[in-house]
Amino acid sequence: MEMNTAPTLDVISLGENMLRLSPPNHERISQTATLEMRFGGAESNVALALARLGLRAGWLSRLPDNALGQRVVAELNAQGVNTTGVRLAPGERLGTYFIEQGVAPRPNRMIYDRANSAFSNMRFADVALPLVDGARWLHITGITAALNEGCRNMALKLVEYAHAAGLTVSFDVNYRALLWSPAQAQNGLLPILKNVDILFCAHRDAMSIFGVSADPLFGVQDLLGLSGGHTCVLTTGEEGAVAISTKTTGTTKPMVDAIAVPGFKVSQVIDRVGAGDAFDAGFIAGQLRDLSLAESIRYGHACSALKITIPGDLALISADEVELLLAGGGAASLR
Amino acid sequence: MEMNTAPTLDVISLGENMLRLSPPNHERISQTATLEMRFGGAESNVALALARLGLRAGWLSRLPDNALGQRVVAELNAQGVNTTGVRLAPGERLGTYFIEQGVAPRPNRMIYDRANSAFSNMRFADVALPLVDGARWLHITGITAALNEGCRNMALKLVEYAHAAGLTVSFDVNYRALLWSPAQAQNGLLPILKNVDILFCAHRDAMSIFGVSADPLFGVQDLLGLSGGHTCVLTTGEEGAVAISTKTTGTTKPMVDAIAVPGFKVSQVIDRVGAGDAFDAGFIAGQLRDLSLAESIRYGHACSALKITIPGDLALISADEVELLLAGGGAASLR
Amino acid sequence: MEMNTAPTLDVISLGENMLRLSPPNHERISQTATLEMRFGGAESNVALALARLGLRAGWLSRLPDNALGQRVVAELNAQGVNTTGVRLAPGERLGTYFIEQGVAPRPNRMIYDRANSAFSNMRFADVALPLVDGARWLHITGITAALNEGCRNMALKLVEYAHAAGLTVSFDVNYRALLWSPAQAQNGLLPILKNVDILFCAHRDAMSIFGVSADPLFGVQDLLGLSGGHTCVLTTGEEGAVAISTKTTGTTKPMVDAIAVPGFKVSQVIDRVGAGDAFDAGFIAGQLRDLSLAESIRYGHACSALKITIPGDLALISADEVELLLAGGGAASLR
Amino acid sequence: MEMNTAPTLDVISLGENMLRLSPPNHERISQTATLEMRFGGAESNVALALARLGLRAGWLSRLPDNALGQRVVAELNAQGVNTTGVRLAPGERLGTYFIEQGVAPRPNRMIYDRANSAFSNMRFADVALPLVDGARWLHITGITAALNEGCRNMALKLVEYAHAAGLTVSFDVNYRALLWSPAQAQNGLLPILKNVDILFCAHRDAMSIFGVSADPLFGVQDLLGLSGGHTCVLTTGEEGAVAISTKTTGTTKPMVDAIAVPGFKVSQVIDRVGAGDAFDAGFIAGQLRDLSLAESIRYGHACSALKITIPGDLALISADEVELLLAGGGAASLR
Amino acid sequence: MEMNTAPTLDVISLGENMLRLSPPNHERISQTATLEMRFGGAESNVALALARLGLRAGWLSRLPDNALGQRVVAELNAQGVNTTGVRLAPGERLGTYFIEQGVAPRPNRMIYDRANSAFSNMRFADVALPLVDGARWLHITGITAALNEGCRNMALKLVEYAHAAGLTVSFDVNYRALLWSPAQAQNGLLPILKNVDILFCAHRDAMSIFGVSADPLFGVQDLLGLSGGHTCVLTTGEEGAVAISTKTTGTTKPMVDAIAVPGFKVSQVIDRVGAGDAFDAGFIAGQLRDLSLAESIRYGHACSALKITIPGDLALISADEVELLLAGGGAASLR
Amino acid sequence: MEMNTAPTLDVISLGENMLRLSPPNHERISQTATLEMRFGGAESNVALALARLGLRAGWLSRLPDNALGQRVVAELNAQGVNTTGVRLAPGERLGTYFIEQGVAPRPNRMIYDRANSAFSNMRFADVALPLVDGARWLHITGITAALNEGCRNMALKLVEYAHAAGLTVSFDVNYRALLWSPAQAQNGLLPILKNVDILFCAHRDAMSIFGVSADPLFGVQDLLGLSGGHTCVLTTGEEGAVAISTKTTGTTKPMVDAIAVPGFKVSQVIDRVGAGDAFDAGFIAGQLRDLSLAESIRYGHACSALKITIPGDLALISADEVELLLAGGGAASLR
Repeated sequence: MEMNTAPTLDVISLGENMLRLSPPNHERISQTATLEMRFGGAESNVALALARLGLRAGWLSRLPDNALGQRVVAELNAQGVNTTGVRLAPGERLGTYFIEQGVAPRPNRMIYDRANSAFSNMRFADVALPLVDGARWLHITGITAALNEGCRNMALKLVEYAHAAGLTVSFDVNYRALLWSPAQAQNGLLPILKNVDILFCAHRDAMSIFGVSADPLFGVQDLLGLSGGHTCVLTTGEEGAVAISTKTTGTTKPMVDAIAVPGFKVSQVIDRVGAGDAFDAGFIAGQLRDLSLAESIRYGHACSALKITIPGDLALISADEVELLLAGGGAASLR
Repeated sequence: MEMNTAPTLDVISLGENMLRLSPPNHERISQTATLEMRFGGAESNVALALARLGLRAGWLSRLPDNALGQRVVAELNAQGVNTTGVRLAPGERLGTYFIEQGVAPRPNRMIYDRANSAFSNMRFADVALPLVDGARWLHITGITAALNEGCRNMALKLVEYAHAAGLTVSFDVNYRALLWSPAQAQNGLLPILKNVDILFCAHRDAMSIFGVSADPLFGVQDLLGLSGGHTCVLTTGEEGAVAISTKTTGTTKPMVDAIAVPGFKVSQVIDRVGAGDAFDAGFIAGQLRDLSLAESIRYGHACSALKITIPGDLALISADEVELLLAGGGAASLR
Repeated sequence: MEMNTAPTLDVISLGENMLRLSPPNHERISQTATLEMRFGGAESNVALALARLGLRAGWLSRLPDNALGQRVVAELNAQGVNTTGVRLAPGERLGTYFIEQGVAPRPNRMIYDRANSAFSNMRFADVALPLVDGARWLHITGITAALNEGCRNMALKLVEYAHAAGLTVSFDVNYRALLWSPAQAQNGLLPILKNVDILFCAHRDAMSIFGVSADPLFGVQDLLGLSGGHTCVLTTGEEGAVAISTKTTGTTKPMVDAIAVPGFKVSQVIDRVGAGDAFDAGFIAGQLRDLSLAESIRYGHACSALKITIPGDLALISADEVELLLAGGGAASLR
Repeated sequence: MEMNTAPTLDVISLGENMLRLSPPNHERISQTATLEMRFGGAESNVALALARLGLRAGWLSRLPDNALGQRVVAELNAQGVNTTGVRLAPGERLGTYFIEQGVAPRPNRMIYDRANSAFSNMRFADVALPLVDGARWLHITGITAALNEGCRNMALKLVEYAHAAGLTVSFDVNYRALLWSPAQAQNGLLPILKNVDILFCAHRDAMSIFGVSADPLFGVQDLLGLSGGHTCVLTTGEEGAVAISTKTTGTTKPMVDAIAVPGFKVSQVIDRVGAGDAFDAGFIAGQLRDLSLAESIRYGHACSALKITIPGDLALISADEVELLLAGGGAASLR
Repeated sequence: MEMNTAPTLDVISLGENMLRLSPPNHERISQTATLEMRFGGAESNVALALARLGLRAGWLSRLPDNALGQRVVAELNAQGVNTTGVRLAPGERLGTYFIEQGVAPRPNRMIYDRANSAFSNMRFADVALPLVDGARWLHITGITAALNEGCRNMALKLVEYAHAAGLTVSFDVNYRALLWSPAQAQNGLLPILKNVDILFCAHRDAMSIFGVSADPLFGVQDLLGLSGGHTCVLTTGEEGAVAISTKTTGTTKPMVDAIAVPGFKVSQVIDRVGAGDAFDAGFIAGQLRDLSLAESIRYGHACSALKITIPGDLALISADEVELLLAGGGAASLR
Repeated sequence: MEMNTAPTLDVISLGENMLRLSPPNHERISQTATLEMRFGGAESNVALALARLGLRAGWLSRLPDNALGQRVVAELNAQGVNTTGVRLAPGERLGTYFIEQGVAPRPNRMIYDRANSAFSNMRFADVALPLVDGARWLHITGITAALNEGCRNMALKLVEYAHAAGLTVSFDVNYRALLWSPAQAQNGLLPILKNVDILFCAHRDAMSIFGVSADPLFGVQDLLGLSGGHTCVLTTGEEGAVAISTKTTGTTKPMVDAIAVPGFKVSQVIDRVGAGDAFDAGFIAGQLRDLSLAESIRYGHACSALKITIPGDLALISADEVELLLAGGGAASLR
């Protein structure tokens, strides 16, 4: 029976992965001769970070069956992510984005070329349900819902399926202004949120999409009220997060008030892309290891801070490194 | 009056330009960390080579109005090609191809990702006709006709327009098996060929599309019969070309028989892409300088051979270098 | 008539462009294996920045007629600068400088190898006057005057010519201690300043060359008194500028007092070279767009700050980006 | 039960993997500033090539539990090799070799620094026997036997174990003159050969170690006589191989005479390292797909030829590409 | 007589030099494709820095007689260090370390692979004593003593020999926690310290190994009491150093109290490795040029700060640059 | 006495060394973003190759006292060349050349920018005569004589001085058409040749400058007649050399007839620059090791062939490698 042979996973995620092309050394596209070739996507970044942290993670997606799609699979296999649920589709394309890395006051500049990607044609029938059945946790994000109606339906069906199957479902709003408006996002996301246990959102996006309070400690409560879940985390810039949870765990009573947890200071931004995904992964890892809400957020902050010091989207970190940072170390190198 | 202010050009071409991404040093996509970023397209390659050879060349196209499209314009401006007829379209994409450079017996491997490019949406109304009016020669290729019906119509209208306006019209079949079948190509190209003065085609493509003779000296006659023009050149692999011309120039009588002209030997292939475009440019330059048919072909062969020794699509050559090679030099370096 | 066919330009500049060779990644010449090859010169940098900002800019110079000189022309053509007034001289050399990029407390270290360059032999007879006639604004700098007497005479004749022809003439002192002493600079520059409308100078140079007040608000008045123009801008380190203008524009009354305008903070210096040129270009663009004195300075500061975040001499920026920064944006990237 | 959960594999191999460091672009160690970092080892190369060819392959080894050892695992995971049998040992080292790539008449120059590696301390008790039990084929080489007595005993016990368990056992002599003498190799290898079904050896090594005939058609018979197996393949330089097999498969009768099968010509050697491993993998793949002896050798030759055109040890090829080459294609690129 | 022909040196040092391999641009080993190849070792770094500062410096060591060992010799020869006392040993290995360069809060991560190096087998009989006889100063460090008993004996004999021969002997504790424990270090170092004139130690190491006071001004006195010398310098983080000296020089009286000398602020850490060695070299150079204790420390701080701005272990600086920094310059670049 | 302290050298050479800048990977200057920075000069190349071959070699020159000149010294020091006779001149420049590396039929293209270099101002008074006195052999070339009259006089005086002092004097004509005409070369070189023992010349240059026979076996005799020496070697393309010697060594009788010695075939040209210098060095090494004329030429050919496989001007070879090639090895790599 197929379900029996599916590996047991801690976390399964579903989402798009894109080819990421960036000029080296802060060059602009108008002057560069080479592009660094990397790959990334919010949900696969979370799966990969979880695998690096020692958890059993899998990723569901749809990719072109060519050297680029195969390379994406190889990148995730390399770090131990289960990719048996990835569909390879001949003749399709890999979504692509170009990123120029600025330093303040020059912003990062992106060119997105993601329309008509192999993933944008993925539907619920393409989802490898046995992998979902074998997992404890599902993580998806609002990017999938933003792509088109078909992907939005897939996302909705999947969170319903996972919720019914008893998985913990986490969802990061990950608002993308280039894909839809705040009003469209509100309409598209509200049905999904009803099936979500844990919700991540940037505070500024929660304000513009859902009209939550400008005070994050109240805003997080507002947003929790819109979801069907028990926990909500609002990120408030690089510096930190506020969160609230009504979950009762063992002797832990539900929280009445939101908490604010500051982040770690990074001396130089090497690459900010993927920092939010690393935060999500760290938080999920914390929860799966039965850390408290505040400890889980700090775990997420540590993952995020380390990610920012590493080139590329991927959080190529280890649990040891995270724990060293949480323990206050990290300044000196061992010789 | 606008037409008066248009620069007088020797040659105008119209076609697509794509982002070209290739791993360095014969690496494969499955192993590389960087991609060389270059740009190229058959018709812009011809315009650029002509500009390098000292002729006034322009190029008509449609590009996305972002850093990538602007970079294409800059690359052509840099070498002196007139780009005032290029349309920049916000929100569209640049066609892209990936190329792995093999050495025998490993073939070059391409991944094309060119669907829905800004150029594929170009129509005859987008053509800057004053630049055509001010030119002596129009060059286009079968790639434009292969993209879709709209582009095919644009190509047909443009050759009719240019023909009527008295320009010499050259056309390179440039068959792309990934875009259409031989039968489709035959249907699509025959109406265009009626308005073409000079026709370039690879012999193997002429056989599969138009069913010409397997003997190139007869095949070139067969193909000339299908066109409305006076001159036809069949390339026969790296090694050479056969051609025929019924044009009467000054005291030159029309040819009765086709001629075969061997190419130049290249000791190491640095980059074969663009060699055919360099040949076309060299041939056109020869014709514009009133060289004989055989001399024009040899001029084209020299451009092509030099191109093969240069990385990228572009024939970054000069007339001096071509003439040195034609004069038998090139072996030794001057110190 | 030739003058009729000359393009109408907003700004024309004249000056030297040099080959710039720098070790990558803060390496020293004593350890590096490669050099980044770039090109730059104060006046061509201004022309290029103006072209990037959407103005019609041209550049007059003299370069060797070899691959290096041709590359300089190509770099400027690429960004839309009119180079039809550049003279190519066979057998001459391109001035060269080597730059090691330090971080504090290690200073940048330059090795200049610019003697006997093609430009150093340029004379007034080499100037393409029709391009000057067709322009609204001339920009030159003290570097040309510092090279030798012949170049100094060319600079003087050109500002006189342009002044007489009704162009706005701007001049940046751009003192180079390796080329002449403060006393020589004073002697050489004073006659030129009489024909200048707008004068840029670093405050510390104005003090050492012209003995202006150490208080920049008075120093700028002192310097304006030495020039024949209406406007003077003193830059006061990375942080800002003071300026004064007696120009009456429309209903704007002449200023009585100098104004001080702070600059933008840059989080990490990627490349400081060319920041002053970007400032000049931004200021000129502001003036040509009828911004006020303070607004023009802020426009210049924005151009300068963005330049500092980009590798190389060239301000590869756009008006959109400048305006985004002036509007207070720039921190976040659009996704 | 653990054995039940072991994946079923087509081929399992055991051996060392080393860090491979090489100067780029034919530079020498005395002049280079960077080293290309790759990884490779005869037996893992075979497993990886088999995985690329679509077979289920696993690899057994012992590596240091640090970023280098983890990278080796990631490289093999990336291409789908089962690495669950790899032991990570804290505090140990990864064998390393440096290679300068010459062109004739300059030979490749290696510096081996492989003593005391984590693998050299691997013993039979470290072998993940369930993975062996679940496989159809075992491949090892003489390098393991050459390292030290402990490794030699492990190799001997493993071939005995696999032979008894009914696996097909293939063995490549892979003589390393830097590790042992021909006489030592003869003594060390003869007991192993008794348990081997298929034996690969370079003809020149078979002569020096085992004293076989200088005529490869006889030499291959001599060598087969020394082994306990049914098939022997002697490689005879880049150009080809001779082989003999006494195996009866279906209606195929045992061979009486050896056959010689020529190889493919490669136009330019990109990297010869790993060509023999690619041959072994191709041959094994051919046998597992029930190809004849001659067809299996040709399959191996094709893999080897393609490998030589790819940088690094690894045969990053696919079955499609091999079959295209075997079908006589490969010259032209599809566009 | 051999001693007569030995060059007269200012300083001779003895120690190990290792191959240093680091991913570029803050990449991790898990993601990089190339490694920067550099070389360094505490004592050779000191010799090289002294040579750059204009002193006659030599270095004693033992290296493998292969391309890597020869490259180490070449690197030191290049900068004018006398390497005639370096022994080349065939068949041995060069100690190696890998370094991932982090930015806070990511620490640098090292992988040491230095066991069984050619240097670890060096003994007192391998020391080129004529070079010691011809020198005025000997510098060694605790790393040599930490390697093994044989090296520790060599270090002890050498300081005794040099002390007896009238050389000034300086010693940097350079504690390496990966090589020995604080208790082992105390036992191993105390006999050596008896023959040392000048002692350098990081304050935190002096506390853990020798139990000195946590107040550096007392700690430095404690440590001086343990040595047989007259001067002791405790470095106290990046920021500075405290020191004490009982030496009577000319009219200078011995100090009663320790002094504290702050360091230079560095705006961006390019590479911290080797900063301590540059400090030692600067201090030694100051002493040899008869600077006061405080001036010598400031000279050392300047060397260290400049080193931190340069990639690699080596202080590729000059006395001019150090003096410019000491004079308060360094901010501006001369143009 | 100074002469007593001068090291005893086998060979001393005098000449210019230039900065060599080349685009990587066969790129053209019109397209490259980086330049490989190397250094070379005919006479320093010979000295360096001799040092690599195990001889004591020194080099006399004049360089700018800046980071570039110091780097040249470091490069030669690194390989053991005695540079104590190099003069560093503040404020002067280093001659520079740019080289585009072609493959046939594209020739290498050079841009020379060598006028007014520090070396071009060197005069006989700058020559460190004690180093000449301490040497057995002097090697110079026609490049020095071609620069200007002052350098030509220096060369003439030096060969006279060395001849008188009993050194063997070798001279390579090394004709540079960009520096002087054949007639000028004849006039300039004839006086020098009278003091030369061993003369090297390319046959084609000997024909154009001195009008020797087009048959190299006679041409070499013609040329020997023009010199005051006993040995003459004519190189005849990549393929070989002819030579004649009237020297009586031990029982060796003077030759009556010239001999022809073929060269080694190189499978791929990596970098041809410096091949002639490597030949000279090999020939000189052979003579100093008392090889016969034919053996010395073969030794030179081997050095030259190996050089062609190495990037850059420098023959980074060893005597072992040369001897391996002469013994017929070189094809296989030792593993």
